[in-house]
Amino acid sequence: MVQIKLPDGSIKEFPDGIRPRDVAAGIGKRLADAAVAAVADGTIVDLDRPLENGTTDAVEMRILTPRDREALDVLRHSTAHIMARAIMRLFPGVRLAFGPTTANGFYYDVEVDGRSLSESDFAAIEDEMAKIVKDAEPFERFSLPVEDARQFVADLGQDLKVEHIDGELHKYGILSFYRQGEFVDLCRGPHIPNAGKVGAFKLLSIAGAYWKGRTDRKMLQRVYGTAFFDKKELDAYLAQVEEARRRDHRKIGKELGLFTISPLVGKGLILWMPKGATVRGLLETFMKAELLKRGYQPVYTPHIGKIDLYQCSGHYPKYRDAQFPPLKMLTDDAAKELLDGLHAGTVDEAAQRTLLARAGIPERLPEKPLDGESPRAYSKSFFEMTDGEKIAYLEANCDYEEYLLKPMNCPHHIQIYAAEPRSYRDLPLRLAEFGTVYRYEQSGELSGLTRVRGFTQDDAHLFCTHDQVKDEFKSTMELTQFVLSSLGLGDYKIRLSKHDPSDPKFQGVDGDIWRRAEDEIAAVLDEMKLPYFVGTGEAAFYGPKVDFIVRDCLGREWQLGTVQLDYVLPERFKLEYIGQDNHLHRPVMIHRAPFGSLERFFGILIEHFAGAFPLWLAPEQVRVLPISDKVADYAGDVLHRLLAAGFRATLDHRPEKINAKIRYAQLEKIPVMLVVGAKEAEQEAVAYRDRTAGDLGAMPLAQAIARIQREVEERTMPQVAPLAAAAEAEEKAEGHEY
Amino acid sequence: MVQIKLPDGSIKEFPDGIRPRDVAAGIGKRLADAAVAAVADGTIVDLDRPLENGTTDAVEMRILTPRDREALDVLRHSTAHIMARAIMRLFPGVRLAFGPTTANGFYYDVEVDGRSLSESDFAAIEDEMAKIVKDAEPFERFSLPVEDARQFVADLGQDLKVEHIDGELHKYGILSFYRQGEFVDLCRGPHIPNAGKVGAFKLLSIAGAYWKGRTDRKMLQRVYGTAFFDKKELDAYLAQVEEARRRDHRKIGKELGLFTISPLVGKGLILWMPKGATVRGLLETFMKAELLKRGYQPVYTPHIGKIDLYQCSGHYPKYRDAQFPPLKMLTDDAAKELLDGLHAGTVDEAAQRTLLARAGIPERLPEKPLDGESPRAYSKSFFEMTDGEKIAYLEANCDYEEYLLKPMNCPHHIQIYAAEPRSYRDLPLRLAEFGTVYRYEQSGELSGLTRVRGFTQDDAHLFCTHDQVKDEFKSTMELTQFVLSSLGLGDYKIRLSKHDPSDPKFQGVDGDIWRRAEDEIAAVLDEMKLPYFVGTGEAAFYGPKVDFIVRDCLGREWQLGTVQLDYVLPERFKLEYIGQDNHLHRPVMIHRAPFGSLERFFGILIEHFAGAFPLWLAPEQVRVLPISDKVADYAGDVLHRLLAAGFRATLDHRPEKINAKIRYAQLEKIPVMLVVGAKEAEQEAVAYRDRTAGDLGAMPLAQAIARIQREVEERTMPQVAPLAAAAEAEEKAEGHEY
Repeated sequence: MVQIKLPDGSIKEFPDGIRPRDVAAGIGKRLADAAVAAVADGTIVDLDRPLENGTTDAVEMRILTPRDREALDVLRHSTAHIMARAIMRLFPGVRLAFGPTTANGFYYDVEVDGRSLSESDFAAIEDEMAKIVKDAEPFERFSLPVEDARQFVADLGQDLKVEHIDGELHKYGILSFYRQGEFVDLCRGPHIPNAGKVGAFKLLSIAGAYWKGRTDRKMLQRVYGTAFFDKKELDAYLAQVEEARRRDHRKIGKELGLFTISPLVGKGLILWMPKGATVRGLLETFMKAELLKRGYQPVYTPHIGKIDLYQCSGHYPKYRDAQFPPLKMLTDDAAKELLDGLHAGTVDEAAQRTLLARAGIPERLPEKPLDGESPRAYSKSFFEMTDGEKIAYLEANCDYEEYLLKPMNCPHHIQIYAAEPRSYRDLPLRLAEFGTVYRYEQSGELSGLTRVRGFTQDDAHLFCTHDQVKDEFKSTMELTQFVLSSLGLGDYKIRLSKHDPSDPKFQGVDGDIWRRAEDEIAAVLDEMKLPYFVGTGEAAFYGPKVDFIVRDCLGREWQLGTVQLDYVLPERFKLEYIGQDNHLHRPVMIHRAPFGSLERFFGILIEHFAGAFPLWLAPEQVRVLPISDKVADYAGDVLHRLLAAGFRATLDHRPEKINAKIRYAQLEKIPVMLVVGAKEAEQEAVAYRDRTAGDLGAMPLAQAIARIQREVEERTMPQVAPLAAAAEAEEKAEGHEY
Repeated sequence: MVQIKLPDGSIKEFPDGIRPRDVAAGIGKRLADAAVAAVADGTIVDLDRPLENGTTDAVEMRILTPRDREALDVLRHSTAHIMARAIMRLFPGVRLAFGPTTANGFYYDVEVDGRSLSESDFAAIEDEMAKIVKDAEPFERFSLPVEDARQFVADLGQDLKVEHIDGELHKYGILSFYRQGEFVDLCRGPHIPNAGKVGAFKLLSIAGAYWKGRTDRKMLQRVYGTAFFDKKELDAYLAQVEEARRRDHRKIGKELGLFTISPLVGKGLILWMPKGATVRGLLETFMKAELLKRGYQPVYTPHIGKIDLYQCSGHYPKYRDAQFPPLKMLTDDAAKELLDGLHAGTVDEAAQRTLLARAGIPERLPEKPLDGESPRAYSKSFFEMTDGEKIAYLEANCDYEEYLLKPMNCPHHIQIYAAEPRSYRDLPLRLAEFGTVYRYEQSGELSGLTRVRGFTQDDAHLFCTHDQVKDEFKSTMELTQFVLSSLGLGDYKIRLSKHDPSDPKFQGVDGDIWRRAEDEIAAVLDEMKLPYFVGTGEAAFYGPKVDFIVRDCLGREWQLGTVQLDYVLPERFKLEYIGQDNHLHRPVMIHRAPFGSLERFFGILIEHFAGAFPLWLAPEQVRVLPISDKVADYAGDVLHRLLAAGFRATLDHRPEKINAKIRYAQLEKIPVMLVVGAKEAEQEAVAYRDRTAGDLGAMPLAQAIARIQREVEERTMPQVAPLAAAAEAEEKAEGHEY
């Protein structure tokens, strides 16, 4: 007998080998009909998988129905099979690679003989899929010993599957397959009971992909699709994708002239054009005013630092792969001259001899290792070497100074702390900087403003005593809340990101220190009555942190602001202050950045507002639209009054009809249009047109100015309606730590 | 007979071989007594040098007296001889190297047997020099054929002079010497007639120096001194040196906590501490407001760019030595894995073979050259090479992406211009950025804020039509004048820096374009009625410029603001706009930076104000000083009122006497101290103490606030009296171009 514990806590006994399907049927017909898969002891399984007692007393089991998030993933995996089956029917001889699910759908990598698939094939594939769904055949699982499994896929002509078994699956004794009519695929499952469960699906796109990411192999084709239990959900998703495309900050950024990326400057490096730079400047000014109020002090630090700085902080070599390579500078002029000369082929042997001697490098057998751990000896004297060998020899034996493009600002701010003896009276010391940092992202991962190689953090580091930690942490949380709410991004979740004791990344520090810091943060969150969830292993390497995960108007989640507690860097840099007791103590550090990265934040703002920034942030706030040339003077007066009042205003004096001028202004998302004609000129009035609300009628100019003034001062937000319910993507943040 | 043309234009005839001394005597006794040397056809000569007709009809001659700037240089050169003579008397066997003059004095490099000189020897040397001056022996010139000259210095035991003759002077047939009693020195002259002309002298310092700068040679000792015709001038100079030392921005910067430099971050890289950063922030805000008024638009650009960008602009390789080296990034993952593996010794031959194939690098005979112009072939196959050879082979044959730390902002701004099609309606386009740039200065040249490796330009680039050049150039000149005057640096000279047709640096561009641009600037200067002088060869490589050479309160000159005209970069980058005629045209660029470098400008401001910044710029503007704890509440109210009024204010609540508090505030150069005691608390008043004017008596708090407000708004400058007349050093600017 097998004991099964149901979600209501009841434990029932069933014969061995009972299937979730039977349990569901025992509970009720509606549940049995709705059932898609089951979760048994934490693992998702097919409805037909026989249940057995494991090590626990009872199998904890629950039935998955379309209402469960996990069920969607099962459905999509099955739809990937259905798509592969359809493709194979249409294009015989297709070889399959892998077909997993993604956050929003699924894909299958395929190799079609003699042709490429294209989006024009989608209709035919979808038709074939629809037939398969209609037939509602079951997904049947069976298993084979690995050697038989290999023969089986070889007989099917699936070379890539054979290769996969030979390469990675051979260690397993038994491999499982799923059969659906004529289609069989090597697969761990689980799957939906039959193809009829697929309520709605759509193929989305096609792209190139390498077998296991190996660029030396022939390129496969990756066909993307998505599936839902319900047509309405699919439609909502497609509408959301369309809306996201419409709001894509790369598209809007180009249309509105907010930023650009130049191949001559480099990928992932943002050039802020005047309008984007204006918004950034306003965000910076807004933040600086808040920081001043809250007792922060400004600093500026350089964008490079010696590698020693990052060795001391532990960022190098730990994160070497995520950094730009070190900038190596020969410290010896003679060595530099010799190397340059060898590269250019312009030094004769006599000159080489002199320069080598001046650089103090021996002609043979250097003691210094080429690299790595153990010294190596050169077998030849310098003057028996080829030029290439000479260069290698010199590069290994010259003295270099190495600099890194700074990947974060903390080590620099620490140097400012350490520049003077500090007393408890100086604490908390809050050092703030809009610090631009550089990190090396693979070029395939770069995307507009949200994944870049250089970005500016609204960074600050607070140095405080142990007693001040809670108050300071709390005030930085409040600042982050204030900033996000002020910018219309008040819908967020809070994650307490803790260390994972099993991850070596966190093992440089005593577990007690980790727990103390985590408890302190949890206490602050409790005190502030802030709901939060825990992310184990999401901490920075130097301490736990709180991450603000913001939901935008499309329901997409973005990790933005972060507040981090750090007992590690003060220790590594041996920071000190003289306490009230006249003894030396070590301060605690808090790292925080409410925006996170200005580039990323701006990208999200663009999409959140679809480029229609609130009045106080708009690059151009007001445009004066004269109806004809006859009121040119008055229009000029209006502009002058607006500029004098401190607004960012322009005048459209092009010889166009007023409707065209309004259309241009709407396209450029100008918040306020002041239309002036003969009547307005006479009465010193304007016809006030709001970007969203439309024509508000004529009003005295003074009243219009007062209205704009009020909206700017109050930082009024446009109404941004939540546009979708079913967004799932949570982008990894480009935050403070990496 | 020789014809001599005197400064009054008269031409007189004298017997051949007549000496300037005789001509002077013929004019009058006072002139003969005052005579120090003469200028004949543009060359400075001894008073005893016989004059001869050259190629011109008459020798143009004038007598130099102590009033002439050139006379001081002659005097100092002679004083270097006098010092060398004194040292040789005191330390027999001294070997002499070179003894030239400097901007403010002279030095002589000497090698003393068996001991080092130190400043404790100065008194004895100066005493001996005084004797020589008192004896007033003449400087006598004589010449020898080069072989005899060599024997002569060899007989004197002057090995370094022998080496100099062998190395560089041997090409001359005849060498000249100057004798003064027992002392003879190989020397081109000219010299003062006798040692008695030296009115005042002083030895200043001692330092190590290499023979002809060669670091592989034994170090010599360089003894520095200065000399004047008059004791008063020496005293004024020494007072000025002392004042400069007192005002040294490195000293004040440390005392006031304005900036720091950390060995872990690197030499020449400035960390702006909170107080310095506050001043910088105020300067930036001040400038931004001005730029906005004048139609500039902000941009932000990254601190790196691909090397292609600088190849296109021409900055690379032209200025390679003045730049940080390129940051080389392997573009191929397999090549990176292979190189890393070889360096660490962790790849076996099979793995090497796979990675080499994946990186697409042949095993032998690459077609790509190692470097330089012509391809080279490797003699071995990759697998016959040593690890060192493999690394060299790979480094020569891998594909790299190279980035430079940006040495200037113009190429980035050009990319923003080029990001959109431009029309004549968009011009002038004025793009402004506080852009931080990096240049590699030799470490020996670094000094505080004024010679650094990273600095921030208040940079802007104006793109305009040919017709707009004059107006735009003029408006940028006016901006620079306004900025310098607003900061108390209104005492400047203007240099029109032109190209030098003989310098290859300028030969990339047609001479007509140079002349046109130079004429345009000259026309603007004339129109603005601005006096200027011409600096030939001081232009930027892309165009002529105007440099503002500012004189600080010590009379020292600094090259600060710059405005540059550029027809070259628009051509190199093929920039375009659509003109009113619907055809494509090339815009003209103006580069300008009124501050030049914020670091350098700040350093000069610190010295100019001796750290006592004007009220509007002071990091801490007001300090409230309660006389006792009893008025703590009222003092808190006063602080609150000050903060609410937007001032940077603090409260000194330390348990100290009021005089001590005042002393601290004075040391920290706080502009306004508001002292409050019981009487003030009662009357809601403050005792107003000005940093410079001292106690201004009690006044109502509201009145004090109004007074501070007014001074801030008017940006009142402290009275900075010119402190010296005789400064000469003009530092080379760290300006826009290099």
